[in-house]
Amino acid sequence: MFKSRLEKLRASLEIAGLDAVVLNPGPTLTYLTGIHFHLMERPVVLMLASAAEPALVLPELEMAKVKEIPYAVTAFPYGEDPAGWDAVFQRAAQRLGLDGKRIGVEPRQMRLLEFWRVRVGAPEADYLDASLTLGSLRLRKDPAEVEAMRSAVRLAQSALEDVLPKIKIGMSEKELAAELVMQLLQNGSEPEFPFAPIVSSGPNSANPHASPTDRSVQAGDLLLFDWGATADGYISDLTRTFAVGQVEPELMKIHKIVQEANAAGRAAAKPGATCASVDAAARAVIERAGYGQYFTHRTGHGIGMEAHEDPYIRGDNMQVLEAGMAFTVEPGIYLPGRNGVRIEDNIVISRDGADVLSDMSRDLAVVG
Amino acid sequence: MFKSRLEKLRASLEIAGLDAVVLNPGPTLTYLTGIHFHLMERPVVLMLASAAEPALVLPELEMAKVKEIPYAVTAFPYGEDPAGWDAVFQRAAQRLGLDGKRIGVEPRQMRLLEFWRVRVGAPEADYLDASLTLGSLRLRKDPAEVEAMRSAVRLAQSALEDVLPKIKIGMSEKELAAELVMQLLQNGSEPEFPFAPIVSSGPNSANPHASPTDRSVQAGDLLLFDWGATADGYISDLTRTFAVGQVEPELMKIHKIVQEANAAGRAAAKPGATCASVDAAARAVIERAGYGQYFTHRTGHGIGMEAHEDPYIRGDNMQVLEAGMAFTVEPGIYLPGRNGVRIEDNIVISRDGADVLSDMSRDLAVVG
Repeated sequence: MFKSRLEKLRASLEIAGLDAVVLNPGPTLTYLTGIHFHLMERPVVLMLASAAEPALVLPELEMAKVKEIPYAVTAFPYGEDPAGWDAVFQRAAQRLGLDGKRIGVEPRQMRLLEFWRVRVGAPEADYLDASLTLGSLRLRKDPAEVEAMRSAVRLAQSALEDVLPKIKIGMSEKELAAELVMQLLQNGSEPEFPFAPIVSSGPNSANPHASPTDRSVQAGDLLLFDWGATADGYISDLTRTFAVGQVEPELMKIHKIVQEANAAGRAAAKPGATCASVDAAARAVIERAGYGQYFTHRTGHGIGMEAHEDPYIRGDNMQVLEAGMAFTVEPGIYLPGRNGVRIEDNIVISRDGADVLSDMSRDLAVVG
Repeated sequence: MFKSRLEKLRASLEIAGLDAVVLNPGPTLTYLTGIHFHLMERPVVLMLASAAEPALVLPELEMAKVKEIPYAVTAFPYGEDPAGWDAVFQRAAQRLGLDGKRIGVEPRQMRLLEFWRVRVGAPEADYLDASLTLGSLRLRKDPAEVEAMRSAVRLAQSALEDVLPKIKIGMSEKELAAELVMQLLQNGSEPEFPFAPIVSSGPNSANPHASPTDRSVQAGDLLLFDWGATADGYISDLTRTFAVGQVEPELMKIHKIVQEANAAGRAAAKPGATCASVDAAARAVIERAGYGQYFTHRTGHGIGMEAHEDPYIRGDNMQVLEAGMAFTVEPGIYLPGRNGVRIEDNIVISRDGADVLSDMSRDLAVVG
């Protein structure tokens, strides 16, 4: 499997007019090698040129991992003293003939820590954003990847189901977040979550990217959970919003609108549609209801090994959806200083529509 | 507090001959602002020049966080379409007059995602590694920071104490890791751990950076836990190694040697000593016992907001220890293909020695 992914990458490089790519620890490196390296203060770099055997620069104490890579790789290990690292990077870059070439990088992943060392070995190379080329390798999920994502959704849903009966007025957002994390693990999620769960209540729910605080949940609040699990290295990313006791009529109303927007977004997702059209379908529901200015973000983002990857469901993204593409549909309405609602599902484009991986109720349930 | 940290940074910039620093989400940004931003596919950059008001480039949907920064900051928000982002970065860089200047960056944190955008705004600037300048700001912990670290150690220790009675022969490393994570949370750790716990058994324990596998724990194994907790944004990072039932005499012997090396390292840690002398003290014990070649890494690393920061306890690091510096002491012996031992403690340099934050027994206990 990993060997065929490597071959696919080599073919894509040629199409993209790139001579090589350099990768640091992250999902693409794991996707291509099956190996997980930590992102740490010691640089680890995989160099892939079209013809040569891949080169891996890494600390000596990580050498045991090289044997786990299911194809031949030339290792360039370095010792503890950083003064010797540049020479090792130079040897690796020379072996692959990188200097003066067109080298693809992932700007979202590659740090200056690794990049500056690579550039010592290939100072005259052109470094180009290869996110699209590398992202497109991982864009169409195969059945095994979809099953892993389905497990990650199932785990996440059962975890929240286990938290709901425990919610009591007066508990803090942080307490609820810790409870949710425990239930995620008890339900079998891998311990490296896609992101720390968001639990936001009352006015905090009006901030789409809130972190859990010491605020206690109160009657009349909306209570939002944005959470995910990891299974076999693939993630889920869901959101549901609840009412704590009785809430103002307008909050019930915006919940209903978001629920309809979520359904419209899911219904618009099918092969041949654009990302923009999915965004437009969800957004139109909220705009027609007069809340367009309170839906302040895109409708969704791709998911897979990462919580945010291609394709992005934005109004300006004319990318055409194809079977195997996986993403979130997550419209929201945020009333500043008051409350917010978001409802987020995970879907995979199928042959004739979309496979909705998440099926937890989207109705406004009362908790607490 | 944050304002005085900002003033200290400005003074350090002058000493380091830097005109400005640019920071992306990470511990230094949080240390200076009190605000936590996610590291995501949308760039967030704080620009600090010696005189001007700091500038913060960020997505519109994160604007709510700007008000939480306890001093005046000029926000440069951008919308969802990446085509407009360069112009926003240019305006911010112009406001601070960054072009042509000497700008400090953190190579370990800064990604090309942020760096390339900054460089559009200041193409003729010199970008320099400011890790030492920025790291030294955070190097001497104040009493509040030490108390947070002490809590993080206490939480981690009680969590492992809660796991030990549950260990049974036949459980997998992954199951034990999930149990440990649950106990960390139940003991009150913040959900963003410093790192995913390492649980490695038998031959896997001979790999210092192993990830938990499906391997079942067997009688005769050594069983190593390398784990940590987070309290008030500060971390702990501990290791203890156990015997599963009866183990070979040589494994008991190397455990004893590592225990003595750990004690020697801690005893050598005091104001005025160098990082190198702490490394040498621990290493000498292992070398004298004839296992020097199996102690394949440095003796320790700094800890604080990050699991790895300055000072690094390496044989070539002549940095002099001062009160408030916090780091790990973690010698190990790894017999390839067989078993490994590591014993790791967290210490803070005090006025006349070292305050050892961790006090869990270091003797070889039998579990399972």
